[in-house]
Amino acid sequence: MESTPSEISSSKMFGGYNKRYKHFSPTLGCSMTFYIYFPPSPSPSHKFPVLYWLSGLSCTDENFIAKSGAQRAASTEGIVLIAPDTSPRGLNVEGEADSWDFGVGAGFYLNATQEKWKNWRITLTSTSRYLPSHQLPIPINCPWGQKAFTNYLGPSKADWEEYDATSLMSKVRDVSATILIDQGDGDKFFPDQLLPNKFEEACRSANVPVLLRLQPGYDHSYFFIATFIDDHIHHHARALKL
Amino acid sequence: MESTPSEISSSKMFGGYNKRYKHFSPTLGCSMTFYIYFPPSPSPSHKFPVLYWLSGLSCTDENFIAKSGAQRAASTEGIVLIAPDTSPRGLNVEGEADSWDFGVGAGFYLNATQEKWKNWRITLTSTSRYLPSHQLPIPINCPWGQKAFTNYLGPSKADWEEYDATSLMSKVRDVSATILIDQGDGDKFFPDQLLPNKFEEACRSANVPVLLRLQPGYDHSYFFIATFIDDHIHHHARALKL
Repeated sequence: MESTPSEISSSKMFGGYNKRYKHFSPTLGCSMTFYIYFPPSPSPSHKFPVLYWLSGLSCTDENFIAKSGAQRAASTEGIVLIAPDTSPRGLNVEGEADSWDFGVGAGFYLNATQEKWKNWRITLTSTSRYLPSHQLPIPINCPWGQKAFTNYLGPSKADWEEYDATSLMSKVRDVSATILIDQGDGDKFFPDQLLPNKFEEACRSANVPVLLRLQPGYDHSYFFIATFIDDHIHHHARALKL
Repeated sequence: MESTPSEISSSKMFGGYNKRYKHFSPTLGCSMTFYIYFPPSPSPSHKFPVLYWLSGLSCTDENFIAKSGAQRAASTEGIVLIAPDTSPRGLNVEGEADSWDFGVGAGFYLNATQEKWKNWRITLTSTSRYLPSHQLPIPINCPWGQKAFTNYLGPSKADWEEYDATSLMSKVRDVSATILIDQGDGDKFFPDQLLPNKFEEACRSANVPVLLRLQPGYDHSYFFIATFIDDHIHHHARALKL
């Protein structure tokens, strides 16, 4: 199979293009797809800043591109959007599709160390300066986190902390750009799974500027994301000094 | 089954709510769903103008609500959006699901006269002044139209003309509001099926103001619709003098 990405679809939107690519990933050991939104370009060689959108549980590379409407602001700001898929596909690992919050389609951005899940190597290696995500990496102190981290990384909680945003915050230095988080207070996963207040506390302890906005009545859906995505695109554009 | 619509989901978006309802339709003889977007309301008894979105082939009541982003402009303009489903569902009429462009999921807004398809009674009866659609009613002089009209209405072309926008244009009087049409010139159905130029000609012959905009490079997808939907919402708001 070909590891060079080949274009499998292209649709114009807001003057730019949503393009979907397919390639064989030697890292994951399977064929993968991803979407890129290219804003209108002043010249064929123009270089754009890039934002990565990391989707969550049950998503593919398609949800954000089809439902968020982020391309509107990305078009006016001149930002490329990249939406990768959320897990390896088609490996037929036993139990990979037994539950919706683990295995296939579960957006845990980590490199598994347990033999059974060794193909789950989905951290991003990138030279881009920004990696926005529509939700915090799943925290270790919630049911989702404990299930996933135990299976992917084994029983040692010290290993889990490498992928826990709240734990990692104690190790960061010199973060000057504000971290913007929107959280619907009608999100059914808010109280027990997402724990954004713990992350906010960790940011404050580390003197990292954070703006956590509780949005009254909004749930976990793309209707919520579409409502606030423009704020996030503009936020990143300002931070990138576009 | 209950013919009074019952709410089956509600999600906040742009300050308003996407609500999906289910009801038993005595007219169609089956259970149906539809979506309504309610913009933010200044008072519980506030009355809003309504726009109906009539989806096309292969769609349900969900596509427009999930993918168009029309709620943004509907929220600021104070317009209710209603997205009905495109056909009866679950009747198990022989052959209803044999092809993607006829039967289940095919958005032909007509009252069938042929016995086999007698449940396909999906014209809208409404007191609203505007019925925008993302595509012209399928014309009779194209392959889609000839297949559908023959099956639903029988062989007489005179019966077909009742549902053909281009034919109907010769009968209208006193249309003062401009009809706005966007058409992607990269739409694979444009040359053979949609025939917007024929409709434009009919409007001009009838002195009906029409603005047909050919949009270079755009296809038939919701990426195209999302790009231009704001123009259409604002267009209707102006015509309604909101």
